[in-house]
Amino acid sequence: MGLKQAIIIRSDLGMSKGKMAGQCAHASVSAYVLARARDADAAREWEEEGQKKIVLKVGSEEELLSLYERMKREMPCALIRDAGKTQLEPGTITCFGAGPAGEALINKYTKELKLL
Amino acid sequence: MGLKQAIIIRSDLGMSKGKMAGQCAHASVSAYVLARARDADAAREWEEEGQKKIVLKVGSEEELLSLYERMKREMPCALIRDAGKTQLEPGTITCFGAGPAGEALINKYTKELKLL
Repeated sequence: MGLKQAIIIRSDLGMSKGKMAGQCAHASVSAYVLARARDADAAREWEEEGQKKIVLKVGSEEELLSLYERMKREMPCALIRDAGKTQLEPGTITCFGAGPAGEALINKYTKELKLL
Repeated sequence: MGLKQAIIIRSDLGMSKGKMAGQCAHASVSAYVLARARDADAAREWEEEGQKKIVLKVGSEEELLSLYERMKREMPCALIRDAGKTQLEPGTITCFGAGPAGEALINKYTKELKLL
């Protein structure tokens, strides 16, 4: 298996699909930047493989943070707080990006989650 | 005004919100990688400003490609074709990412579009 990135987003905030897409893009870029700083070759490999990624949902901030704390011990993870200019209160935690990292490692943490 | 990235996505393909979020993330990372290769300082500035971005929709492949051709003359743009493993036919053009680039320049091309 190759490399994969996971994006985990809260489904309990009433965000529009455009808002969710923007937050996921933010998480994806931020986690990629972290991963690239740690291992530029792996980041490039992920790009060349077509940037495999998966977008998953959780139902609360508590669930999001619990997963974030566990995953960040094993791979680069970027937690996103919304600037709050539209739709949400400033500082609302919306999602996080994890990896790219080994697909088996990503799956270990995400296999119980549902697709957004 | 600072720097902004635009992500323009087709709304005529019947993609789920999770699929759209993944495609937008792909476009965002790919356009960022192009922008960073051209001007690393500007890419970093955009990151430090909070990665301002906007997600907009168009109703057809024709409209998407027409805008892509015009915008790519003035800024780094990344066109995304789906691998087609789920939901879409392989090679379907789904979206593109433009910039980060100057916000006024982005707005010049996107001001008539609707938010996703």
